[in-house]
Amino acid sequence: MPSRQQLANAIRALSMDAVQQANSGHPGAPMGMADIAEVLWNDFLQHNPANPQWANRDRFIMSNGHGSMLVYSLLHLSGYELPIEELKNFRQLHSKTPGHPEYGYAPGVETTTGPLGQGISNAVGMAIAEKTLAAQFNQDTFNIVDHFTYCFLGDGCLMEGISHEASSLAGTLGLGKLVAFWDDNGISIDGHVEGWFTDNTPARFEAYGWHVIAGVDGHDPQAIKEAVAAAKANTKQPTLICCKTVIGFGSPNKSGSHDSHGSPLGADEITATREFLKWPHGPFEIPADIYAGWDAKSSGAELEETWNAQFSAYANAHPELAAELTRRLNGDLPADFAEKAQAFVEQSQEKAENVASRKASQNSIEAFAAIMPEILGGSADLAGSNLTLWSNAKGISADDANGNYLYYGVREFGMSGIMNGIGLHGGFRPFGATFLMFMEYARNAVRMASLMGIPNIFVYTHDSIGQGEDGPTHQPIEQVANLRLTPNLTTWRPCDGAETAVAWKSALERKDGPSALVFSRQGLPAQARNAEQLANVAKGGYILKECDGVPQVILIGTGSEVGVAMDAAEQLSAKGVAVRVVSMPSTSVFDQQDAAYREAVLPRAVKARVAVEAAHVDYWSKYVGLDGAVVGMSTFGESAPGGVLLKHFGITADAVAQKAHGLLNC
Amino acid sequence: MPSRQQLANAIRALSMDAVQQANSGHPGAPMGMADIAEVLWNDFLQHNPANPQWANRDRFIMSNGHGSMLVYSLLHLSGYELPIEELKNFRQLHSKTPGHPEYGYAPGVETTTGPLGQGISNAVGMAIAEKTLAAQFNQDTFNIVDHFTYCFLGDGCLMEGISHEASSLAGTLGLGKLVAFWDDNGISIDGHVEGWFTDNTPARFEAYGWHVIAGVDGHDPQAIKEAVAAAKANTKQPTLICCKTVIGFGSPNKSGSHDSHGSPLGADEITATREFLKWPHGPFEIPADIYAGWDAKSSGAELEETWNAQFSAYANAHPELAAELTRRLNGDLPADFAEKAQAFVEQSQEKAENVASRKASQNSIEAFAAIMPEILGGSADLAGSNLTLWSNAKGISADDANGNYLYYGVREFGMSGIMNGIGLHGGFRPFGATFLMFMEYARNAVRMASLMGIPNIFVYTHDSIGQGEDGPTHQPIEQVANLRLTPNLTTWRPCDGAETAVAWKSALERKDGPSALVFSRQGLPAQARNAEQLANVAKGGYILKECDGVPQVILIGTGSEVGVAMDAAEQLSAKGVAVRVVSMPSTSVFDQQDAAYREAVLPRAVKARVAVEAAHVDYWSKYVGLDGAVVGMSTFGESAPGGVLLKHFGITADAVAQKAHGLLNC
Repeated sequence: MPSRQQLANAIRALSMDAVQQANSGHPGAPMGMADIAEVLWNDFLQHNPANPQWANRDRFIMSNGHGSMLVYSLLHLSGYELPIEELKNFRQLHSKTPGHPEYGYAPGVETTTGPLGQGISNAVGMAIAEKTLAAQFNQDTFNIVDHFTYCFLGDGCLMEGISHEASSLAGTLGLGKLVAFWDDNGISIDGHVEGWFTDNTPARFEAYGWHVIAGVDGHDPQAIKEAVAAAKANTKQPTLICCKTVIGFGSPNKSGSHDSHGSPLGADEITATREFLKWPHGPFEIPADIYAGWDAKSSGAELEETWNAQFSAYANAHPELAAELTRRLNGDLPADFAEKAQAFVEQSQEKAENVASRKASQNSIEAFAAIMPEILGGSADLAGSNLTLWSNAKGISADDANGNYLYYGVREFGMSGIMNGIGLHGGFRPFGATFLMFMEYARNAVRMASLMGIPNIFVYTHDSIGQGEDGPTHQPIEQVANLRLTPNLTTWRPCDGAETAVAWKSALERKDGPSALVFSRQGLPAQARNAEQLANVAKGGYILKECDGVPQVILIGTGSEVGVAMDAAEQLSAKGVAVRVVSMPSTSVFDQQDAAYREAVLPRAVKARVAVEAAHVDYWSKYVGLDGAVVGMSTFGESAPGGVLLKHFGITADAVAQKAHGLLNC
Repeated sequence: MPSRQQLANAIRALSMDAVQQANSGHPGAPMGMADIAEVLWNDFLQHNPANPQWANRDRFIMSNGHGSMLVYSLLHLSGYELPIEELKNFRQLHSKTPGHPEYGYAPGVETTTGPLGQGISNAVGMAIAEKTLAAQFNQDTFNIVDHFTYCFLGDGCLMEGISHEASSLAGTLGLGKLVAFWDDNGISIDGHVEGWFTDNTPARFEAYGWHVIAGVDGHDPQAIKEAVAAAKANTKQPTLICCKTVIGFGSPNKSGSHDSHGSPLGADEITATREFLKWPHGPFEIPADIYAGWDAKSSGAELEETWNAQFSAYANAHPELAAELTRRLNGDLPADFAEKAQAFVEQSQEKAENVASRKASQNSIEAFAAIMPEILGGSADLAGSNLTLWSNAKGISADDANGNYLYYGVREFGMSGIMNGIGLHGGFRPFGATFLMFMEYARNAVRMASLMGIPNIFVYTHDSIGQGEDGPTHQPIEQVANLRLTPNLTTWRPCDGAETAVAWKSALERKDGPSALVFSRQGLPAQARNAEQLANVAKGGYILKECDGVPQVILIGTGSEVGVAMDAAEQLSAKGVAVRVVSMPSTSVFDQQDAAYREAVLPRAVKARVAVEAAHVDYWSKYVGLDGAVVGMSTFGESAPGGVLLKHFGITADAVAQKAHGLLNC
């Protein structure tokens, strides 16, 4: 029977050997946190290596994702489908072991980490999802949803602002089943942290309302075990276990130094480490007794079987709840979604309300939340401006998690990282809102959702200078382009109620990535559409106004500028110009249409094209080329009423018509 | 003699009346913080309304910038060039009183605030600048640099992650002359904060090492005065004064509620407030005795005169230091800059080293830091990767501020906001570095530097999939485009040592806005240039390789892909194609050249153009149009060695040559 330290040393050996083989990577954190991980995984973690998707597993997140070899070692040793060959291929193309843990590559990786501080926000999201799902579905004796979320953290995570946002909200919400472990090794990349990081971290987390267990020796299995037990026993507060560790533990000459952080130890030091750790086995060699000590396959199977039996009983007692929970965990839309959603789209078209698209968005939320109880809304303290509340919205609080709305506070990045955790957990379709400008505060979490393919919905209102008096700090210029250029993110900027309904419907139907829904503050005119046009909205771009014969000029508009393009078209038509107007609510969706459709909307032969958007002009070169023109912005905005600004910056029908005349005359 | 409360009520009246007149704005914060502001400005603030640029003035920042009417009221009342007409024009086009305080509009506005949490980071930067400038220039009895930085904060600022980053570093650096006032009114936009913000803020700031004065009645002038005196007396720690206030104080029906936060009070409520406050004067009417109570013109003139006399004595005793301080405060380059910088550029060209551009950047830093002692470097815990240290770099610490380098820790957003504060303070040219990907964490502060026109330098390394094994979380795709689309930001992505030297030179020469310098992790080949080509690098885009006669095809490359374009050109030339290669290190600088130059580089007649960049393809439509082609990225990257990835994703000379052939054949 191997000792605990020997079990932990398997992680150390695999980590240093894989980094050495890749000649790239981070041995320090895995070697430092090996003992903590060993205790957590062997004594506490409820999981089933044979089924990484088991709904009620404990979640394990490594927020300091550069220590990915710790995760891969744990998954390999405990019996996941991650053979030793994959560890030998660490950081190589087509391996399951990329440099940072990537969601969807190795089984058992719960989220992609690496961008520091986001893992803890994902963990907070998972703990919220667990608590709220439990509140919605658990019945009498059936604790069908009942698991912990464990998160490892480094100094870097704690320095990042997002750790403040997420941890503060976790304290407020009393997430008792969240347990975080601080790898207090006193080292970051620049060296010993005293020169730049002197927080009293235990006091900081106590200030957030956390249960803090300070001064744990991160290399003492008994101390770690007692701390985790105490953490689990406190069900009212999240717990931070502060573990004093030595980075690169086991390396005689590099432990305790940033030299072990982000580079291979080197062959000689690896030999010395093997000696120090009394680990005589060759690279990637794990003795059978060590594997046996780690193996979680049978215990995991047993755990899941027990839960399955419990779930069967639950399904007998509460068949509808069980079916609904299953549907929601599978991420399936309700059976009547398509029909009801289509009806809502048609109704939105018929109503033809002249409202701000943010108001149209609220109407959509009202309609879709009634169909999909898995919608979990929220806003970063702008509910009344983003218009994110609906009639049955109910806030989630520490004492009552049975809600469907999160008051995120002024925490855009935290909100977005938490949404990602909720989305990854399953059971919910989160949306979260802020002003489009403050998407920037949260930007990298939006990218992470895109990278992981989480179908979250990011709602962004006040989308241009039309916002008005708040001035340039609140007026997006380059932000919509930034969203559109993000791979796997679908961005919608609808022009009226019907397009807004389609955008929401499309976002909810997406399964493989997030959507950004971009809305105006100001009122917008409803556009007339026939059935074919209404159906084509979902194609991202379509002919909203057609002319007889081949168009001489095509006007392309989006969002609040579709009305401008329509007005310009009227002016041009009056002068006998054959003009087509294309509404382009989603460029990425339009780009995904087949070539014939795209050619039908934007025929290559028509070079006279004018795009209009109260956003940066450069983006539109993609559709108008060198021969077309763009009416848009290339400077910052100003503070004044929105209508005044649109005129001041020339986002007008006159300007569009003038550009079109210019193209036709040359 | 009016009472203190009457003086404060002048702020309340101006604020509610201006918001009412604009029919837009935020009366709550100004009315709530009026008493604090009155005490601070009338009893403590050292400033001269006649000269808002006086170098040794105390800095006053309103981080909760939506309360801009508080700032405008203070500036108007104390005697700045901000007549009452400007307050009547609050939030109107061409006024000096935009919705949020905008740097450069009203005299006395020290920084643009509105995006929450950034004001406190600016204030931290100003306090660092003061402390370091003092350490560099003060001599024996001459405390030439000696002022405080005061910052107002709301709950929103405290919820934002950047407040954590900036405040944590402020504590570590022992910024004793920074005093922050927390407007503890218990209200944010969504209502009473208990549901989303329950931090023990005093304990949190104590955990950062701040001096915390808790429980101050924000409507009791004596208590406020004592707190400020205690704050000033503690010179070893920054101080947070926690002020219990009532939002919208004075409004009988809306105070204490978020109803007073962001909307006009309404005519009836304003009447009621006038009664409650016993303020019988009409809108925008301020009695003479109130003006007299606020007037800081003569005291300010006296303060500056005293300082001027001191400075003269200092200049007599230390003429070189005085001249150097004056130069640095004026933001002038050293007299020998042009000559030495040009010599360094030429030397970089001659050396023709094949190095990573991040290494070339370090060479530039070494060269320019030797010429410009005002360079204040730093990195967000990536000094060894960003290559930001130079031979005479010396870290700034709590005990020794006489340095030129900041170890910012893992705080990208905090770093960038702090840099903005340092830049606004004057006396330094800060640069700060991180990986290009983590620009996103700091994105809005980069935008704020662009909006304010602060010539800071943002250094971003590891600029593409060429970064390699760290994988897609660390591999920029859409980030360079995001920088390029930012108004007033100059982005450089140089291809070798000479272009890097020009980029640094250009960034240091800029006076009206920031520069982003984007560098590779991997080694890059040096390109040959004649004198004209070398001179043209500064034009942002230029012909690096010319062909005989009119080119059949133009290849456009940037950064690490210039070498790829040159290799492709060789292939094409070998097949008899007349090919030109344009190196485009800075699109924004190229766009600023006159039409003749741009036409000479990219003749309109040549439609066959291929752009190559290991970044998002869409950006390049601007230069290649609908008839050209782009070799680039439209997906996320992967984890593998950089060279493997560039091949895997087709960023190769073969691919470029193939696209060129494709264009020529069709």
